[in-house]
Amino acid sequence: MKKTAAVITVSDRSHRGEREDVSGPAVAKALREAGFEITGSEIVPDEKEKIRVMLERYVERAALVVTTGGTGVAKRDVTPEATEQVCDRMIPGIPEFMRSEGLKKTAMSPLSRAVCGVRGSTLLLNLPGNPNGAVDSLQTVLPLLLHAMELLAGHTEHS
Amino acid sequence: MKKTAAVITVSDRSHRGEREDVSGPAVAKALREAGFEITGSEIVPDEKEKIRVMLERYVERAALVVTTGGTGVAKRDVTPEATEQVCDRMIPGIPEFMRSEGLKKTAMSPLSRAVCGVRGSTLLLNLPGNPNGAVDSLQTVLPLLLHAMELLAGHTEHS
Amino acid sequence: MKKTAAVITVSDRSHRGEREDVSGPAVAKALREAGFEITGSEIVPDEKEKIRVMLERYVERAALVVTTGGTGVAKRDVTPEATEQVCDRMIPGIPEFMRSEGLKKTAMSPLSRAVCGVRGSTLLLNLPGNPNGAVDSLQTVLPLLLHAMELLAGHTEHS
Repeated sequence: MKKTAAVITVSDRSHRGEREDVSGPAVAKALREAGFEITGSEIVPDEKEKIRVMLERYVERAALVVTTGGTGVAKRDVTPEATEQVCDRMIPGIPEFMRSEGLKKTAMSPLSRAVCGVRGSTLLLNLPGNPNGAVDSLQTVLPLLLHAMELLAGHTEHS
Repeated sequence: MKKTAAVITVSDRSHRGEREDVSGPAVAKALREAGFEITGSEIVPDEKEKIRVMLERYVERAALVVTTGGTGVAKRDVTPEATEQVCDRMIPGIPEFMRSEGLKKTAMSPLSRAVCGVRGSTLLLNLPGNPNGAVDSLQTVLPLLLHAMELLAGHTEHS
Repeated sequence: MKKTAAVITVSDRSHRGEREDVSGPAVAKALREAGFEITGSEIVPDEKEKIRVMLERYVERAALVVTTGGTGVAKRDVTPEATEQVCDRMIPGIPEFMRSEGLKKTAMSPLSRAVCGVRGSTLLLNLPGNPNGAVDSLQTVLPLLLHAMELLAGHTEHS
């Protein structure tokens, strides 16, 4: 199984250069420590079409495409909608598990609209925009992601 | 942030005048006690198109539109489907949280098909038809609703 | 209320005769012990269109149509997508409850993409492909299924 990952930061401010992107590098670091090779890091604004195009580009270049940001309730938070457009099949239990585990740290965890899904043999996952939240959520689901990636790579009874 | 709310009771029987609407007033009372101004209270039958039209009307007139009733499994329960049609974006974690908290009171809580979502800057939420269940579910998610409403009003880093 | 059920095994290997179908008979046995009459047992390959056609056939012949298999993350796992196509309305709380209860037995439980929904007055439910997992998941939600079937049979205040 190829452990390649891309990290897409979704943030108007970071895209305009008004705020340093802390979350993207933090997520990339956590993935590297888990044995992933990072094949790309990008910053896009909170615009559905731009997020979608970037996700589709990296679906071809990584076994795992992770976003950080744009999963909340504010008007410009559209990362989940863009991600759903790219996915063939969704895995609702992964964000469900992130939210229920997230409740141990913050009562606002149910407001995350993050999704997880599959396009071809690539796994796509939304993480929150907050750097600590993003890394915590990633760690929470990492064993699930690794198992899902093995299944997508064909290490399964279906193959 | 404007704390305005509308309460839509979805019930064939109450609409036909065969049963007093207890849930709608109970939900309105709980909202007033939480500092909301009630901008409308309506009763509609369990018909998707009528529910949808009423939701769209009140999206223009309230920051929070709450329904009570029609979220179950019975054939005429279509409030979630009508609500999804009106929403731009869904917040799956809120009904997920209502159901998991609801399990503490009733083992049948997973049968609630309630949804929560956003249309423009208005939050829409389905509550169960039972008066106690409706008020309990509302109280359970009230802190989440208030935070979501603040984010929708633009009190966010995106603005 | 008629307690009739059909069991559809979704498995390429069992369909090709390369592996004995253990899950289907195990689920049928558990349903019989719960008082159901089994009106059909079928084996279909992991192909969305074939699953969909079989589900639609049994919607006419059973109050409960249960599948086993094809709910995972592997490329050919498409049972949830086929089931959603057949359903009029979904009941997200049932698979949500299966996954949260499933966590007590396996940490990989969030990877189940199983769905549950309604077509007309028939309930449709996906179970995992593993025989023990399928029977365990069924037992976990059986009281919910029976209550939902009563509501669908019209034993409700809406009628």
